[in-house]
Amino acid sequence: MALTPGTHPPLRVAVLGCGVVGTEVVRRLVTEGDELAARVGARLELVGVAVRSLDTERDPVVDRALLTTDAESLVEKADVVVELMGGIEPARTLLLRAVAHGASAVTANKALLAQEGPALYDAVDAAGVDLYFEAAVAGAIPIVRPVRESLAGDTVQRVLGIVNGTTNYVLDQMTTTGQGLAEAVADAQDLGYAEADPTADVEGYDAAAKAAILASLAFHTRVALDDVDRTGITGLTADDVTWAGRTGHVLKLLAVAERATDAAGREGVLVRVQPTLVPSGHPLAGVRQAFNAVFVEAEAAGELMFYGRGAGGSPTASAVLGDLVSVARHRVLGGKGPVESSHADLPVLDGGEARSRYQVRLEVDDRAGVLARVAAELAAQDVSIESVRQTLQGTGDDASATLVITTHTAAERALRATVDAVAALDVVRHVVSVLPVL
Amino acid sequence: MALTPGTHPPLRVAVLGCGVVGTEVVRRLVTEGDELAARVGARLELVGVAVRSLDTERDPVVDRALLTTDAESLVEKADVVVELMGGIEPARTLLLRAVAHGASAVTANKALLAQEGPALYDAVDAAGVDLYFEAAVAGAIPIVRPVRESLAGDTVQRVLGIVNGTTNYVLDQMTTTGQGLAEAVADAQDLGYAEADPTADVEGYDAAAKAAILASLAFHTRVALDDVDRTGITGLTADDVTWAGRTGHVLKLLAVAERATDAAGREGVLVRVQPTLVPSGHPLAGVRQAFNAVFVEAEAAGELMFYGRGAGGSPTASAVLGDLVSVARHRVLGGKGPVESSHADLPVLDGGEARSRYQVRLEVDDRAGVLARVAAELAAQDVSIESVRQTLQGTGDDASATLVITTHTAAERALRATVDAVAALDVVRHVVSVLPVL
Repeated sequence: MALTPGTHPPLRVAVLGCGVVGTEVVRRLVTEGDELAARVGARLELVGVAVRSLDTERDPVVDRALLTTDAESLVEKADVVVELMGGIEPARTLLLRAVAHGASAVTANKALLAQEGPALYDAVDAAGVDLYFEAAVAGAIPIVRPVRESLAGDTVQRVLGIVNGTTNYVLDQMTTTGQGLAEAVADAQDLGYAEADPTADVEGYDAAAKAAILASLAFHTRVALDDVDRTGITGLTADDVTWAGRTGHVLKLLAVAERATDAAGREGVLVRVQPTLVPSGHPLAGVRQAFNAVFVEAEAAGELMFYGRGAGGSPTASAVLGDLVSVARHRVLGGKGPVESSHADLPVLDGGEARSRYQVRLEVDDRAGVLARVAAELAAQDVSIESVRQTLQGTGDDASATLVITTHTAAERALRATVDAVAALDVVRHVVSVLPVL
Repeated sequence: MALTPGTHPPLRVAVLGCGVVGTEVVRRLVTEGDELAARVGARLELVGVAVRSLDTERDPVVDRALLTTDAESLVEKADVVVELMGGIEPARTLLLRAVAHGASAVTANKALLAQEGPALYDAVDAAGVDLYFEAAVAGAIPIVRPVRESLAGDTVQRVLGIVNGTTNYVLDQMTTTGQGLAEAVADAQDLGYAEADPTADVEGYDAAAKAAILASLAFHTRVALDDVDRTGITGLTADDVTWAGRTGHVLKLLAVAERATDAAGREGVLVRVQPTLVPSGHPLAGVRQAFNAVFVEAEAAGELMFYGRGAGGSPTASAVLGDLVSVARHRVLGGKGPVESSHADLPVLDGGEARSRYQVRLEVDDRAGVLARVAAELAAQDVSIESVRQTLQGTGDDASATLVITTHTAAERALRATVDAVAALDVVRHVVSVLPVL
């Protein structure tokens, strides 16, 4: 039996922010009103859209009479507040005010959640309302809900994925066209995949915020943005991408959150964002352009993968509306979605504890015995070699060789120390790159 | 803040059936008791496990004192009933009895849902309790929840996927080893992927039940097992698999549920299960062994894919426990999960209305003008040809040729009529196969 709209008074919905996503959310509220009412059990009445300026030109689907610059007053008359402004302030203050007035909240704001999550969760908990944020991680891909709810009876061991579409587009361009980083970033900007200031994406801040949110959900532990060991893609060259391909890999910026045990035997979580060599047969290697994909490894469920569009107005609006329907249904039928659960409260381990295979690329003198000396140095540091590949460059006295060493699994700290020792060898001219291998 | 266990009295959980999945569910209830209590806000107390025989040898994790053959009495003393018996009866009667007594229910029983879903949904609705069934479709892969909840504010256009691990294993074996169907099925039986009587899997009944459930959820329309246009894999030969590879495809048994418009302009849904040629670059082509994957195409979200283990004790138990946590939280905090929504009530269209590209393989006389005659016949029936491939077999008078024709998109009904007309041509010896192309 479908719920009969009309038996419950309409729910007042306030939308904060009217950019690309805000406009799409308004569009669906307007055009899908009957359908949404059937799913919620009450009509969703858009009571206002908070904007910075009333004069900006907007899509005609947004009724100008609903626009307001007075977001403070708007949130106080809403049953559900949908925050799509981004950034920390005034989003944080407005959400706290909305919640204090008893409104439920939906947000797509990963930066706010990663930085101010605990304060928001506490406020939401105290007020007995809902805070949903599916759109904050991997756009339209349902990942927050599966981790919070579907896997609630399982134990997640590791979450890893491509959660930033901009950097995936850039790396994919570099891989398929041989472009350099700057050129690929410029392309991404032309296509609207990257912002004018691409720092948040290319330095990995956006991915780190999502990694912090996913880690918090998966491990029932508060993980903040600062807990994430973060390396962006700005250090990568066309050469790195070429060498990845030559050795059967694809370079991807991966967010990884995993349970781990440190050298002292302490259990905790490790969360990092870093360019990683993904074997070309791995499903993540096939994630092209601006798509996102998240792998979840759980004790009972095994390996799950979620794939789709990680950004864009329409996909993000889909996630926001799914959340809106859920929190609206709770207002109609009672009940409450999952609260933040930080009961496990695991320590966040130092990034140096991360264990991985690594690929180390060296420029060395082209003479006999070089490989033996490098190998001896690795052995001395207890890092064992899985494979070595040597390629000659140039001729005569100045001839050098590229040595690509893939190690067996080693702790990052030990690996770094080893690389430093190798770099100090007189036969080693230059450590070109050190990249983890999935 | 984590919920504090102990502030709410324990919830009484009854498990019906103690096979592979039941045993795993009991195991997690026992070993993860504290963790589950933290997530639910109350302890989950296992009050009994209904079995057919008390004498069967069982895993020691199952406390023999909890076993009972009196399922009727057991369901009456439970807050949540987890039904893992399979089949229609007594599962149906027991679930209805449980619900009538005010218990919430979790089931993994796709056959029951596909056949008796509406009666169950009505009973659950009348009692104001929950019925969750994530494990009934694609095992551990969260697909029911994303479609019911995450996409609640979107419009699903098509769901398609590999939802039966047994047939995927069989087809994968045939593809990678060149085995025939019987041999691959025997292998699957040896490995426990196929049952002694593999009919439900190989004839597509299992996939059809899942397709009916997915279609009902995605399109807010009641779709029953009988509404599904079903073709199993028993008609497929090693030759079909080889030809799929030669033409750049992989043969997969796909479940497809989509919005469509029939020849008369009537909007409705089409639901079918059929062996399909998947282009080898498509992500579904890479789904190996007994894995499952479901694609969802939604208006705003775009294309989403969900991938993981579709069967097995542990993965299925993970899905069951996720559901159990959700319905248990509703008992603790109030509220209720999504109800069945059949408000759209779209007609289920005849399978003949399905539109697809097709690959038609013919054995024809090897003489001049054959291709022209076949092409003329297709043109006469208004089916246009995308590509043709002709391969000679044998020599002399008895020489024949294989003609592989790929059509542009055509309605299934028109395609079948065309194939009949082609088969009647004197130069055509035999229509070897007709398969849809994704």
